[in-house]
Amino acid sequence: MPSGGPEIEQLIQLLARLPGLGPRSARRAVLHMIKRKEQLMLPLSAALDRAVVAVKTCQICGNVDTVSPCSICADPRRGESGMLIVVEDVSDLWALERAGPGQVRYHVLGGVLSPLDGIGPDDLNLDTLVARAPDYAEIVLAMNATVDGQTTAHYITDRLGPDTKVTRLAHGVPIGGELDYLDEGTLSQALRARTQI
Amino acid sequence: MPSGGPEIEQLIQLLARLPGLGPRSARRAVLHMIKRKEQLMLPLSAALDRAVVAVKTCQICGNVDTVSPCSICADPRRGESGMLIVVEDVSDLWALERAGPGQVRYHVLGGVLSPLDGIGPDDLNLDTLVARAPDYAEIVLAMNATVDGQTTAHYITDRLGPDTKVTRLAHGVPIGGELDYLDEGTLSQALRARTQI
Repeated sequence: MPSGGPEIEQLIQLLARLPGLGPRSARRAVLHMIKRKEQLMLPLSAALDRAVVAVKTCQICGNVDTVSPCSICADPRRGESGMLIVVEDVSDLWALERAGPGQVRYHVLGGVLSPLDGIGPDDLNLDTLVARAPDYAEIVLAMNATVDGQTTAHYITDRLGPDTKVTRLAHGVPIGGELDYLDEGTLSQALRARTQI
Repeated sequence: MPSGGPEIEQLIQLLARLPGLGPRSARRAVLHMIKRKEQLMLPLSAALDRAVVAVKTCQICGNVDTVSPCSICADPRRGESGMLIVVEDVSDLWALERAGPGQVRYHVLGGVLSPLDGIGPDDLNLDTLVARAPDYAEIVLAMNATVDGQTTAHYITDRLGPDTKVTRLAHGVPIGGELDYLDEGTLSQALRARTQI
Protein backbone atom coordinates (compact mmCIF):
# COMPACT_ATOMS: atom_id res chain seq x y z
CA MET A 1 0.00 0.00 0.00
CA PRO A 2 1.24 3.52 -0.69
CA SER A 3 2.16 5.82 2.17
CA GLY A 4 -0.37 8.01 3.85
CA GLY A 5 -3.13 5.73 5.05
CA PRO A 6 -6.43 4.82 3.36
CA GLU A 7 -8.14 8.19 4.04
CA ILE A 8 -5.42 10.12 2.20
CA GLU A 9 -5.23 7.57 -0.61
CA GLN A 10 -8.98 7.75 -1.18
CA LEU A 11 -8.90 11.55 -1.25
CA ILE A 12 -6.15 11.43 -3.89
CA GLN A 13 -8.10 8.97 -6.03
CA LEU A 14 -11.26 11.10 -5.95
CA LEU A 15 -9.40 14.34 -6.68
CA ALA A 16 -7.66 12.62 -9.61
CA ARG A 17 -11.06 12.23 -11.27
CA LEU A 18 -11.52 15.99 -11.60
CA PRO A 19 -10.79 17.39 -15.08
CA GLY A 20 -7.27 18.80 -15.32
CA LEU A 21 -5.95 16.65 -12.47
CA GLY A 22 -4.28 13.25 -12.75
CA PRO A 23 -2.94 10.91 -10.04
CA ARG A 24 0.32 12.84 -9.76
CA SER A 25 -1.15 16.32 -9.53
CA ALA A 26 -3.88 15.05 -7.18
CA ARG A 27 -1.13 13.76 -4.88
CA ARG A 28 0.60 17.14 -4.98
CA ALA A 29 -2.70 18.90 -4.32
CA VAL A 30 -3.43 16.71 -1.28
CA LEU A 31 0.04 17.29 0.20
CA HIS A 32 -0.35 21.02 -0.44
CA MET A 33 -3.66 20.89 1.44
CA ILE A 34 -2.28 18.89 4.34
CA LYS A 35 0.55 21.37 4.82
CA ARG A 36 -2.01 24.20 4.90
CA LYS A 37 -4.59 22.44 7.01
CA GLU A 38 -6.00 25.53 8.74
CA GLN A 39 -5.83 27.95 5.79
CA LEU A 40 -6.91 25.60 3.00
CA MET A 41 -7.96 22.06 3.93
CA LEU A 42 -10.51 22.96 6.61
CA PRO A 43 -12.13 25.81 4.60
CA LEU A 44 -12.23 23.62 1.48
CA SER A 45 -13.86 20.79 3.41
CA ALA A 46 -16.45 23.19 4.85
CA ALA A 47 -17.08 24.88 1.47
CA LEU A 48 -17.61 21.51 -0.20
CA ASP A 49 -20.03 20.42 2.53
CA ARG A 50 -22.01 23.64 2.11
CA ALA A 51 -22.02 23.41 -1.68
CA VAL A 52 -23.20 19.78 -1.65
CA VAL A 53 -26.23 20.82 0.39
CA ALA A 54 -26.89 24.10 -1.39
CA VAL A 55 -26.42 23.32 -5.09
CA LYS A 56 -29.61 23.11 -7.13
CA THR A 57 -30.44 23.03 -10.83
CA CYS A 58 -32.78 25.86 -11.84
CA GLN A 59 -36.11 24.37 -12.90
CA ILE A 60 -36.67 27.14 -15.45
CA CYS A 61 -33.35 27.55 -17.28
CA GLY A 62 -31.14 24.64 -16.18
CA ASN A 63 -28.49 26.90 -14.57
CA VAL A 64 -26.72 25.73 -11.41
CA ASP A 65 -27.34 27.88 -8.35
CA THR A 66 -28.17 27.66 -4.66
CA VAL A 67 -31.78 28.67 -5.29
CA SER A 68 -34.37 27.52 -7.83
CA PRO A 69 -35.48 29.53 -9.79
CA CYS A 70 -31.86 30.71 -10.07
CA SER A 71 -30.87 34.31 -9.32
CA ILE A 72 -30.92 35.16 -13.05
CA CYS A 73 -34.44 33.80 -13.63
CA ALA A 74 -35.67 35.42 -10.38
CA ASP A 75 -34.37 38.89 -11.32
CA PRO A 76 -37.18 40.82 -13.08
CA ARG A 77 -34.72 43.28 -14.74
CA ARG A 78 -33.20 40.31 -16.54
CA GLY A 79 -36.35 39.94 -18.60
CA GLU A 80 -36.41 43.56 -19.82
CA SER A 81 -34.18 43.16 -22.87
CA GLY A 82 -36.39 40.34 -24.10
CA MET A 83 -33.28 38.38 -25.02
CA LEU A 84 -32.98 34.64 -24.28
CA ILE A 85 -29.55 33.12 -24.92
CA VAL A 86 -29.54 29.37 -25.54
CA VAL A 87 -26.32 27.58 -24.50
CA GLU A 88 -25.17 23.96 -24.49
CA ASP A 89 -23.87 23.85 -20.97
CA VAL A 90 -23.72 25.73 -17.66
CA SER A 91 -20.03 26.47 -18.30
CA ASP A 92 -21.05 28.38 -21.46
CA LEU A 93 -23.58 30.38 -19.43
CA TRP A 94 -20.86 31.32 -16.95
CA ALA A 95 -18.47 32.23 -19.77
CA LEU A 96 -21.08 34.56 -21.32
CA GLU A 97 -21.86 36.12 -17.93
CA ARG A 98 -18.17 37.00 -17.55
CA ALA A 99 -18.44 38.84 -20.88
CA GLY A 100 -21.15 41.03 -19.26
CA PRO A 101 -23.93 40.72 -21.86
CA GLY A 102 -26.34 42.95 -19.90
CA GLN A 103 -29.85 42.13 -18.73
CA VAL A 104 -30.41 38.84 -20.54
CA ARG A 105 -31.72 35.43 -19.58
CA TYR A 106 -30.43 31.98 -20.50
CA HIS A 107 -31.60 28.50 -21.39
CA VAL A 108 -29.24 25.57 -20.81
CA LEU A 109 -29.85 22.68 -23.23
CA GLY A 110 -27.70 20.23 -21.31
CA GLY A 111 -25.85 19.07 -24.43
CA VAL A 112 -26.22 18.96 -28.21
CA LEU A 113 -27.93 16.62 -30.63
CA SER A 114 -25.53 13.84 -31.48
CA PRO A 115 -26.87 10.80 -33.35
CA LEU A 116 -23.50 9.05 -32.95
CA ASP A 117 -23.72 9.31 -29.15
CA GLY A 118 -27.43 8.48 -29.20
CA ILE A 119 -28.46 11.95 -27.97
CA GLY A 120 -31.79 12.95 -29.50
CA PRO A 121 -34.19 15.86 -28.94
CA ASP A 122 -35.79 14.16 -25.92
CA ASP A 123 -32.47 14.12 -24.06
CA LEU A 124 -32.16 17.93 -24.15
CA ASN A 125 -34.18 20.67 -22.44
CA LEU A 126 -35.96 21.50 -25.72
CA ASP A 127 -39.63 21.35 -24.72
CA THR A 128 -39.04 23.88 -21.96
CA LEU A 129 -37.26 26.13 -24.48
CA VAL A 130 -40.20 25.99 -26.88
CA ALA A 131 -42.52 26.82 -23.98
CA ARG A 132 -40.38 29.80 -22.87
CA ALA A 133 -39.72 31.24 -26.34
CA PRO A 134 -43.00 33.21 -26.78
CA ASP A 135 -42.10 35.34 -23.71
CA TYR A 136 -38.96 36.67 -25.40
CA ALA A 137 -38.47 39.01 -28.36
CA GLU A 138 -35.26 37.34 -29.51
CA ILE A 139 -33.71 33.91 -29.08
CA VAL A 140 -29.90 33.97 -29.44
CA LEU A 141 -28.40 30.55 -30.23
CA ALA A 142 -24.97 30.43 -28.61
CA MET A 143 -23.98 26.85 -29.39
CA ASN A 144 -20.34 25.92 -29.88
CA ALA A 145 -19.17 26.33 -33.49
CA THR A 146 -18.94 22.55 -33.93
CA VAL A 147 -20.86 20.33 -36.35
CA ASP A 148 -23.10 19.02 -33.57
CA GLY A 149 -23.59 22.53 -32.17
CA GLN A 150 -24.63 23.94 -35.54
CA THR A 151 -26.89 20.96 -36.28
CA THR A 152 -28.62 21.59 -32.96
CA ALA A 153 -28.97 25.29 -33.81
CA HIS A 154 -30.67 24.42 -37.12
CA TYR A 155 -33.00 21.97 -35.38
CA ILE A 156 -34.00 24.59 -32.80
CA THR A 157 -34.62 27.21 -35.50
CA ASP A 158 -36.98 24.80 -37.29
CA ARG A 159 -38.67 23.85 -34.06
CA LEU A 160 -39.30 27.47 -32.99
CA GLY A 161 -40.90 28.26 -36.35
CA PRO A 162 -40.80 31.35 -38.59
CA ASP A 163 -42.65 33.65 -36.17
CA THR A 164 -39.81 33.64 -33.64
CA LYS A 165 -36.80 35.94 -34.13
CA VAL A 166 -33.80 33.62 -33.88
CA THR A 167 -30.19 34.88 -34.11
CA ARG A 168 -26.79 33.28 -33.62
CA LEU A 169 -23.40 34.50 -32.34
CA ALA A 170 -21.22 36.20 -34.99
CA HIS A 171 -18.38 34.17 -36.47
CA GLY A 172 -15.09 35.99 -36.99
CA VAL A 173 -11.52 36.57 -35.93
CA PRO A 174 -11.11 36.17 -32.15
CA ILE A 175 -9.68 39.18 -30.30
CA GLY A 176 -5.90 38.73 -30.25
CA GLY A 177 -6.11 36.07 -32.94
CA GLU A 178 -3.67 35.87 -35.84
CA LEU A 179 -5.03 35.42 -39.35
CA ASP A 180 -2.22 33.04 -40.21
CA TYR A 181 -3.45 30.51 -37.64
CA LEU A 182 -7.16 30.70 -38.46
CA ASP A 183 -9.00 28.15 -40.57
CA GLU A 184 -10.45 29.09 -43.97
CA GLY A 185 -14.05 28.78 -42.75
CA THR A 186 -13.61 31.38 -40.03
CA LEU A 187 -11.72 33.73 -42.36
CA SER A 188 -14.30 33.60 -45.15
CA GLN A 189 -17.09 34.14 -42.57
CA ALA A 190 -15.18 37.09 -41.09
CA LEU A 191 -14.65 38.58 -44.57
CA ARG A 192 -18.30 38.17 -45.53
CA ALA A 193 -19.51 39.75 -42.26
CA ARG A 194 -17.00 42.65 -42.39
CA THR A 195 -18.16 45.87 -40.76
CA GLN A 196 -17.44 49.51 -41.65
CA ILE A 197 -14.85 51.23 -39.45
CA MET B 1 -21.42 38.77 -8.81
CA PRO B 2 -20.70 35.78 -11.02
CA SER B 3 -23.34 33.11 -11.51
CA GLY B 4 -23.70 30.22 -9.18
CA GLY B 5 -24.25 31.69 -5.74
CA PRO B 6 -21.73 32.39 -2.97
CA GLU B 7 -21.27 28.74 -1.92
CA ILE B 8 -20.19 27.70 -5.43
CA GLU B 9 -18.03 30.79 -5.90
CA GLN B 10 -16.20 30.13 -2.63
CA LEU B 11 -15.60 26.50 -3.55
CA ILE B 12 -14.11 27.62 -6.88
CA GLN B 13 -11.82 30.13 -5.18
CA LEU B 14 -10.51 27.57 -2.69
CA LEU B 15 -9.97 24.89 -5.35
CA ALA B 16 -8.09 27.45 -7.47
CA ARG B 17 -5.47 27.67 -4.71
CA LEU B 18 -4.43 24.03 -5.20
CA PRO B 19 -1.25 23.53 -7.23
CA GLY B 20 -2.00 22.75 -10.85
CA LEU B 21 -5.40 24.43 -10.78
CA GLY B 22 -6.21 28.03 -11.69
CA PRO B 23 -9.52 29.91 -11.62
CA ARG B 24 -10.57 28.51 -15.00
CA SER B 25 -9.78 24.85 -14.28
CA ALA B 26 -11.25 25.16 -10.77
CA ARG B 27 -14.50 26.36 -12.35
CA ARG B 28 -14.48 23.39 -14.73
CA ALA B 29 -13.73 21.03 -11.83
CA VAL B 30 -16.64 22.39 -9.78
CA LEU B 31 -19.08 22.08 -12.70
CA HIS B 32 -17.80 18.55 -13.32
CA MET B 33 -18.46 17.74 -9.66
CA ILE B 34 -21.93 19.28 -9.64
CA LYS B 35 -22.94 17.22 -12.66
CA ARG B 36 -21.72 14.08 -10.88
CA LYS B 37 -23.07 14.89 -7.45
CA GLU B 38 -23.75 11.33 -6.31
CA GLN B 39 -20.71 9.66 -7.89
CA LEU B 40 -18.09 12.35 -7.20
CA MET B 41 -19.13 15.39 -5.17
CA LEU B 42 -20.63 13.55 -2.19
CA PRO B 43 -17.78 10.98 -1.92
CA LEU B 44 -15.19 13.74 -2.28
CA SER B 45 -16.86 15.79 0.43
CA ALA B 46 -16.95 12.78 2.75
CA ALA B 47 -13.35 11.79 1.96
CA LEU B 48 -12.15 15.31 2.66
CA ASP B 49 -14.03 15.40 5.97
CA ARG B 50 -12.48 12.08 6.98
CA ALA B 51 -8.98 13.14 5.91
CA VAL B 52 -9.21 16.45 7.80
CA VAL B 53 -9.93 14.55 11.01
CA ALA B 54 -7.52 11.68 10.41
CA VAL B 55 -4.37 13.35 9.06
CA LYS B 56 -1.47 13.57 11.49
CA THR B 57 2.23 14.39 11.20
CA CYS B 58 4.42 11.57 12.52
CA GLN B 59 6.28 12.78 15.63
CA ILE B 60 9.28 10.63 14.81
CA CYS B 61 9.95 11.12 11.09
CA GLY B 62 7.68 13.97 9.96
CA ASN B 63 5.71 11.79 7.50
CA VAL B 64 2.00 12.45 7.01
CA ASP B 65 -0.28 9.58 8.03
CA THR B 66 -3.44 8.83 9.94
CA VAL B 67 -1.50 7.52 12.92
CA SER B 68 1.51 8.84 14.82
CA PRO B 69 4.04 7.20 14.87
CA CYS B 70 3.32 6.63 11.19
CA SER B 71 2.89 3.13 9.74
CA ILE B 72 6.51 3.15 8.51
CA CYS B 73 7.99 4.10 11.91
CA ALA B 74 5.67 1.64 13.68
CA ASP B 75 6.69 -1.31 11.48
CA PRO B 76 9.60 -3.16 13.18
CA ARG B 77 10.71 -4.79 9.89
CA ARG B 78 11.38 -1.30 8.54
CA GLY B 79 14.29 -0.96 10.96
CA GLU B 80 16.03 -4.17 9.89
CA SER B 81 18.01 -2.76 6.98
CA GLY B 82 19.43 -0.09 9.28
CA MET B 83 18.88 2.46 6.52
CA LEU B 84 17.47 5.91 7.23
CA ILE B 85 16.64 7.99 4.17
CA VAL B 86 16.60 11.76 4.71
CA VAL B 87 14.24 13.69 2.41
CA GLU B 88 13.26 17.33 2.09
CA ASP B 89 9.55 16.82 1.95
CA VAL B 90 6.73 14.27 2.40
CA SER B 91 6.19 14.24 -1.38
CA ASP B 92 9.78 12.98 -1.76
CA LEU B 93 9.11 10.23 0.78
CA TRP B 94 6.04 9.15 -1.18
CA ALA B 95 8.00 9.26 -4.44
CA LEU B 96 10.70 7.00 -2.95
CA GLU B 97 8.10 4.61 -1.53
CA ARG B 98 6.63 4.23 -5.02
CA ALA B 99 10.11 3.14 -6.19
CA GLY B 100 9.92 0.30 -3.63
CA PRO B 101 13.23 0.76 -1.79
CA GLY B 102 12.62 -2.14 0.60
CA GLN B 103 12.59 -2.11 4.40
CA VAL B 104 13.87 1.40 5.06
CA ARG B 105 12.86 4.28 7.30
CA TYR B 106 12.68 7.97 6.51
CA HIS B 107 13.33 11.36 8.04
CA VAL B 108 11.50 14.37 6.61
CA LEU B 109 13.46 17.61 7.04
CA GLY B 110 10.56 19.86 6.13
CA GLY B 111 12.62 21.91 3.68
CA VAL B 112 16.24 22.80 2.90
CA LEU B 113 18.68 25.36 4.22
CA SER B 114 18.17 28.55 2.27
CA PRO B 115 19.88 31.74 3.52
CA LEU B 116 18.05 33.77 0.86
CA ASP B 117 14.66 32.66 2.20
CA GLY B 118 15.84 32.97 5.80
CA ILE B 119 15.62 29.21 6.45
CA GLY B 120 18.35 28.14 8.88
CA PRO B 121 19.13 24.87 10.68
CA ASP B 122 16.63 25.63 13.46
CA ASP B 123 13.76 25.71 10.92
CA LEU B 124 14.34 22.09 9.85
CA ASN B 125 13.90 18.78 11.70
CA LEU B 126 17.68 18.46 12.18
CA ASP B 127 17.98 17.90 15.93
CA THR B 128 15.62 14.92 15.72
CA LEU B 129 17.70 13.54 12.84
CA VAL B 130 20.93 13.82 14.88
CA ALA B 131 19.14 12.06 17.74
CA ARG B 132 17.88 9.23 15.50
CA ALA B 133 21.11 8.72 13.52
CA PRO B 134 22.96 6.45 16.06
CA ASP B 135 20.17 3.85 15.74
CA TYR B 136 20.88 3.37 12.04
CA ALA B 137 23.82 1.83 10.22
CA GLU B 138 23.53 4.16 7.25
CA ILE B 139 22.05 7.58 6.62
CA VAL B 140 21.08 8.12 2.96
CA LEU B 141 20.74 11.78 2.00
CA ALA B 142 18.02 12.01 -0.66
CA MET B 143 17.81 15.75 -1.12
CA ASN B 144 16.82 17.27 -4.46
CA ALA B 145 19.78 17.85 -6.81
CA THR B 146 19.51 21.59 -6.37
CA VAL B 147 22.08 23.98 -4.90
CA ASP B 148 20.09 24.33 -1.66
CA GLY B 149 19.53 20.58 -1.47
CA GLN B 150 23.21 19.78 -1.87
CA THR B 151 24.21 22.53 0.58
CA THR B 152 21.85 20.97 3.10
CA ALA B 153 23.36 17.53 2.43
CA HIS B 154 26.85 18.87 3.14
CA TYR B 155 25.66 20.56 6.32
CA ILE B 156 24.05 17.34 7.56
CA THR B 157 27.20 15.31 6.76
CA ASP B 158 29.26 17.72 8.88
CA ARG B 159 26.72 17.69 11.64
CA LEU B 160 26.54 13.89 11.85
CA GLY B 161 30.33 13.63 12.14
CA PRO B 162 32.85 11.18 10.70
CA ASP B 163 31.65 8.17 12.73
CA THR B 164 28.32 8.00 10.90
CA LYS B 165 28.13 6.29 7.53
CA VAL B 166 26.50 8.89 5.29
CA THR B 167 25.69 8.19 1.65
CA ARG B 168 23.86 10.11 -1.02
CA LEU B 169 21.74 9.15 -4.02
CA ALA B 170 23.72 8.29 -7.15
CA HIS B 171 23.88 10.79 -9.94
CA GLY B 172 21.23 9.75 -12.30
CA VAL B 173 19.00 12.28 -10.65
CA PRO B 174 19.12 15.02 -13.30
CA ILE B 175 20.65 18.29 -12.14
CA GLY B 176 17.88 20.70 -11.22
CA GLY B 177 15.33 17.88 -11.12
CA GLU B 178 12.96 17.19 -8.25
CA LEU B 179 12.29 13.72 -6.85
CA ASP B 180 8.57 14.07 -7.02
CA TYR B 181 8.68 14.32 -10.82
CA LEU B 182 11.01 11.38 -11.46
CA ASP B 183 10.02 7.95 -12.70
CA GLU B 184 10.36 4.95 -10.38
CA GLY B 185 13.10 3.33 -12.48
CA THR B 186 15.46 6.30 -12.19
CA LEU B 187 14.76 6.59 -8.48
CA SER B 188 15.47 2.95 -7.68
CA GLN B 189 18.66 3.06 -9.84
CA ALA B 190 19.81 6.15 -7.98
CA LEU B 191 19.14 4.47 -4.65
CA ARG B 192 21.05 1.30 -5.62
CA ALA B 193 24.11 3.26 -6.83
CA ARG B 194 24.38 5.48 -3.74
CA THR B 195 27.98 6.49 -2.91
CA GLN B 196 29.73 7.28 0.35
CA ILE B 197 30.46 10.96 0.96
